[in-house]
Amino acid sequence: MMGEQARTYAVIGTGAVGGFYGARLVEAGCSVHFLLHSDFDHVMRNGLIVESPLGDATLVNGKFSGGFHQSTSSLPDCDFVLVALKTTQNHLLGNLLPPLVTERATVVMLQNGLGVEAEAAAIVGGDKVVGGMCFLCSNKVEPGHIRHLDYGLITLADYGPDGAGRGITEPMRFLAEDFGRAGIPISLEEDLLSSRWKKLVWNIPFNGLSVVLDATTEELMAREETRDLATALIEEVVMGASACGATIPSGYASQMVQSTGAMKPYLTSMKLDADAGRPLEIDTMYARPLRAASAAGVELPLIEMLYRQLAFIDARSSSTP
Amino acid sequence: MMGEQARTYAVIGTGAVGGFYGARLVEAGCSVHFLLHSDFDHVMRNGLIVESPLGDATLVNGKFSGGFHQSTSSLPDCDFVLVALKTTQNHLLGNLLPPLVTERATVVMLQNGLGVEAEAAAIVGGDKVVGGMCFLCSNKVEPGHIRHLDYGLITLADYGPDGAGRGITEPMRFLAEDFGRAGIPISLEEDLLSSRWKKLVWNIPFNGLSVVLDATTEELMAREETRDLATALIEEVVMGASACGATIPSGYASQMVQSTGAMKPYLTSMKLDADAGRPLEIDTMYARPLRAASAAGVELPLIEMLYRQLAFIDARSSSTP
Repeated sequence: MMGEQARTYAVIGTGAVGGFYGARLVEAGCSVHFLLHSDFDHVMRNGLIVESPLGDATLVNGKFSGGFHQSTSSLPDCDFVLVALKTTQNHLLGNLLPPLVTERATVVMLQNGLGVEAEAAAIVGGDKVVGGMCFLCSNKVEPGHIRHLDYGLITLADYGPDGAGRGITEPMRFLAEDFGRAGIPISLEEDLLSSRWKKLVWNIPFNGLSVVLDATTEELMAREETRDLATALIEEVVMGASACGATIPSGYASQMVQSTGAMKPYLTSMKLDADAGRPLEIDTMYARPLRAASAAGVELPLIEMLYRQLAFIDARSSSTP
Repeated sequence: MMGEQARTYAVIGTGAVGGFYGARLVEAGCSVHFLLHSDFDHVMRNGLIVESPLGDATLVNGKFSGGFHQSTSSLPDCDFVLVALKTTQNHLLGNLLPPLVTERATVVMLQNGLGVEAEAAAIVGGDKVVGGMCFLCSNKVEPGHIRHLDYGLITLADYGPDGAGRGITEPMRFLAEDFGRAGIPISLEEDLLSSRWKKLVWNIPFNGLSVVLDATTEELMAREETRDLATALIEEVVMGASACGATIPSGYASQMVQSTGAMKPYLTSMKLDADAGRPLEIDTMYARPLRAASAAGVELPLIEMLYRQLAFIDARSSSTP
């Protein structure tokens, strides 16, 4: 059945990531159902506004194929469930996923860090889970208002039964088709673990340092001390990746640093979370990679130091009213 | 001649450290000449106000033995020159010390970090230099107004010709006499290098983390992540000390952590500097210990990471008008 008509999507978490990609899929002719929580009333009244260099859009309920939902109970059967929650909300997945994940559905984990596919797999079974790594600069600037600034590539890799991916699967090809039509480049990969660690090569140094030092990526790259520190952190990520059996191509890390130096100045997702007083995604982005590396016999002291600093900042923020 | 009458002191740098100790020495009957820079006019008009649990004092020019000076040229011959500048001002020593250091004078380096005695020795000769490590919680709250909160112990150790201390010297005993009369405990030590590194056991973790994490020592000690991080940093200080030939008694580090946990919450000197927009003492407190350890074959990666973070913060602050 799948592929015969416009595919349907459920978007769990209609923020900077889910709101942006969902709106692009609407533009591409897909049917998209957005699950909202705190912004639901606002979006029902004012629509979902998505600004982007790819084109601005305002989605008004009833005026596009799909709709806005306050509960999973009103969501129809979908081909794809895009999970775009912050990972600090993943304790909700046990309630959110089961009603949505029917026979035909595939869950796409558009989240940061390590181990998020396993969390979904524990709920819906690994054969229904695909990992998605988003290289995206987007920001929710106010309720129901998303501003996409730059980038957008998604790397997809299958999780598969027991976490051993089954190569490039049919659902992955359908996703690439839909997103491609939406102007979003998709890279299809066979090795989820390596793809996750490659993303960490950037996320671990730049998210953490931007929060601890209250800095943009441009400021971090502009000074030798922080450039050297980012490089040292990246070397530890590569060590951890290698110990865990992931493959980071030689040259990938230095290419990451160089392209970050060429980026427009912008705030990382964790810096945006910190500034907004939201919990930080330090468990999936730091604690799990540290545990995985440690279990593989490798300690990563600089990343651990950064994690402890972030944990202090995160705990202080959550204890401040 | 020395010791026959009330001894005379020159205080170079009349801030939280120099202002406090100088005022205590005045109370103890010594003759004290304070060198001031930006606060000179203010102090000539309003006096030097020093609040302390040991007793409050207001020193008014002409009403105490000694005086306030705007230039070394008006300072008389003194028995002791107390250098209480921030180490970020040590480039001034080449001009300040020579006119003050006559035949009888001893220079006491009441500064933080490593290598400050060698700086003075290069100017006046090592036989005239004594190191002083202040365990003091004091703050300049406004021009000419110093608030001493707690502690006050000074550890003294001779530098001597070529940096090899000559044991407990006569000038050290005179200093202990005068400070003792002033209510300031003095500990006389033979091993300057070990005394300097022992001070770093506290300074390196707590000064740096308080600035990077914008926190009091109490906040840092209240959470496991930062307590563990401080402990890991202290372990590196002890490794560095040992590589450099300094001796930290076993148990000293953990005793430091415990007593910090029992401290009243207060801001470290580096945090006060950061909050006031002053340059940070990262060269003497971090860069030199790192270089010394590295030269002795030991790398200290966590301290280096903290140093790089502080260097970023320091450079950004100094480039902001």
